[in-house]
Amino acid sequence: MKTLRREDIEDFALGGGLFGCGGGGDTYLGKLMLEIEMERCGEIPLLSVDEVPDDAMVVLTAVVGAPSVFLEKVPNGGEDRRVIEQVEKECGKPVFGILIGEVGGLNSILPAVTAARLGLPLIDADPTGRCVPSVHATAFNINHLDISPIVIADEFMNTVVIRTDDHLKGERLTRSMIVEMGGSAIFAFCPISGAQLRKIALPGAVTHPIAVGRAIREARASGKSPFEAVARLLTDTPLYGWADTLIEGKIVDVHRRSDTGFTIGRTVIRSLGGGQDELELEFKNEHLVARINGEVRGTVPDLITVLDSETGEHIGTDRLRYGQRVTVMVARAPAMWRTERGLSLLGPRAYDIDCDYVPVEMLNDRSSKTIRSEEDQSAECEA
Amino acid sequence: MKTLRREDIEDFALGGGLFGCGGGGDTYLGKLMLEIEMERCGEIPLLSVDEVPDDAMVVLTAVVGAPSVFLEKVPNGGEDRRVIEQVEKECGKPVFGILIGEVGGLNSILPAVTAARLGLPLIDADPTGRCVPSVHATAFNINHLDISPIVIADEFMNTVVIRTDDHLKGERLTRSMIVEMGGSAIFAFCPISGAQLRKIALPGAVTHPIAVGRAIREARASGKSPFEAVARLLTDTPLYGWADTLIEGKIVDVHRRSDTGFTIGRTVIRSLGGGQDELELEFKNEHLVARINGEVRGTVPDLITVLDSETGEHIGTDRLRYGQRVTVMVARAPAMWRTERGLSLLGPRAYDIDCDYVPVEMLNDRSSKTIRSEEDQSAECEA
Repeated sequence: MKTLRREDIEDFALGGGLFGCGGGGDTYLGKLMLEIEMERCGEIPLLSVDEVPDDAMVVLTAVVGAPSVFLEKVPNGGEDRRVIEQVEKECGKPVFGILIGEVGGLNSILPAVTAARLGLPLIDADPTGRCVPSVHATAFNINHLDISPIVIADEFMNTVVIRTDDHLKGERLTRSMIVEMGGSAIFAFCPISGAQLRKIALPGAVTHPIAVGRAIREARASGKSPFEAVARLLTDTPLYGWADTLIEGKIVDVHRRSDTGFTIGRTVIRSLGGGQDELELEFKNEHLVARINGEVRGTVPDLITVLDSETGEHIGTDRLRYGQRVTVMVARAPAMWRTERGLSLLGPRAYDIDCDYVPVEMLNDRSSKTIRSEEDQSAECEA
Repeated sequence: MKTLRREDIEDFALGGGLFGCGGGGDTYLGKLMLEIEMERCGEIPLLSVDEVPDDAMVVLTAVVGAPSVFLEKVPNGGEDRRVIEQVEKECGKPVFGILIGEVGGLNSILPAVTAARLGLPLIDADPTGRCVPSVHATAFNINHLDISPIVIADEFMNTVVIRTDDHLKGERLTRSMIVEMGGSAIFAFCPISGAQLRKIALPGAVTHPIAVGRAIREARASGKSPFEAVARLLTDTPLYGWADTLIEGKIVDVHRRSDTGFTIGRTVIRSLGGGQDELELEFKNEHLVARINGEVRGTVPDLITVLDSETGEHIGTDRLRYGQRVTVMVARAPAMWRTERGLSLLGPRAYDIDCDYVPVEMLNDRSSKTIRSEEDQSAECEA
């Protein structure tokens, strides 16, 4: 059986940030939490989806709310146990293992913390393949599974159980609770069987971050570009299959506010290369759209991520600030997001970006771009 | 055993409005709902608190939200059964009987509808003795009972269970759910035993409205003033002990908005008597303060109620409009509200009325008013 070991933590946290796409919470906080737990428990059993019995129940834990709130409103450390125990009570059966809530940021790491605390195995899979801004944007919803119960606990141990047959209503009711709870909380939802898990979950939510983290670390150690290493690795990873660097530059503008339980805003990055190219990102927890000089070069559901140009570390939307030297990478979203149903949940129009979805590898592939005239493009996107 | 009979419905609805103090929801809607149920079930067993076994569990049902929303967002008729069944599941025991949520308006009547639907007895008691704007302003909180579980269901059968050890947090979490549910929903909370019920509940939540309704009806039939009849009746009712008419006049101004799950605003009533006295009411679902020509003449927790001058019917804050001929009555609040703890939950300062609480019978008793100088009064209240 594979395990998550203490020596994996650095790579796990470093590489996980990439999948955060700006959201998912600060990995540094998660790393500290996981180090404390693993000092105690040694290692955590890590199961592939194939190792979960058909009728066993697994569930995710995650932090939900605005990343800029997580930074200062730290969990008390008992909420995850509370939500798992409540899920067991609601469902009348024990939780067999902990699923990753969403690969990326703190939310990659928190389920490992929960698994360590409760002595449960961690499942190397998640329902999103990247961080997402909404509870209803998951493989659970794409595959019409019941989202209930949604169990939420805050640091005062106020506990809320929501039952609804509508994932979007689940998102809305959860979000309004979160706002009242001060902007963030720990939650679990959509407990599923091992049999369901195998059908719908995206594999690699632990092993992909570790591999990315190692690639960044090894490239830096040998004086190579960590971004080229990451692009190569993701291109070779079947779940993604394509990745590239959009721009290397300096942040020259940040607008950000915490509103309705989200971190919302935009940032402008000016190229440090020869030209005066400017890349603008709009975000709602996660980055929604990237434009270079007004031209769309990537949108949700494809991954858009801001990394520190020197260290390769993820810079969340809560920590963007003027003057940072950053490298913006894009990667192809897992295939489920590129279906009509996937795009209805995580496409640009689902977040009020008035723009048809065009696969990121087409927007950034020179050979295909020459085929598309400028008029075509402006017709596709008038954001 | 006493029963609530079909021939009581008219008086029950008519008299219940008085205790609404502007809130509690429109009684007409409740009357229609109750008529439908009682046509089916005949009569409803009506128990005094002494008739509930010590270890039996009772719970209230109520509509929560903004009265101006109830008017157009009618329950689907299944929410009350849903919340009662969920309470039973949460507590692991059956509900023995239905308590009145708060005497007044629709919320007097809805529990009778629930009792009829579920074939349960109705308890002639409530935890408030009047309508209140907040979930945390109850005898439950005054007596430090556990508010959990709070169970909420909307017309789509979205169901939420909140557990908290803090009544105010319960109010806030409930309110933010209600806003997301569209402004109103049906809920139950704080299930208690028969033994607890006897210690804390206020008696008469069914019999008082019926008596008031009958007094209004009989006074009108014999050409007498229904308001004098009501004042006499309440003065003779131990739970209240004092009531009077503040003004008879015409509504000349109404400001009203639906905000944060409440109906908020103010209205001005000009006297139809000789003078040009103007009475101003500020409300948040219920009336919070009454001033005549700027002088405070009544505040929460005392009852302030606007009745139709011709029919004696309650006019809720959601239905106040220019030109209505109205009579404003005030009555003493039940004694529990006049304690320090009661005032901290339902006193004027609890609703941002910057004014010390002065008992309404002192504010309106000429013999005591002559003792108090104008300076005393302006020091007491600088709203």
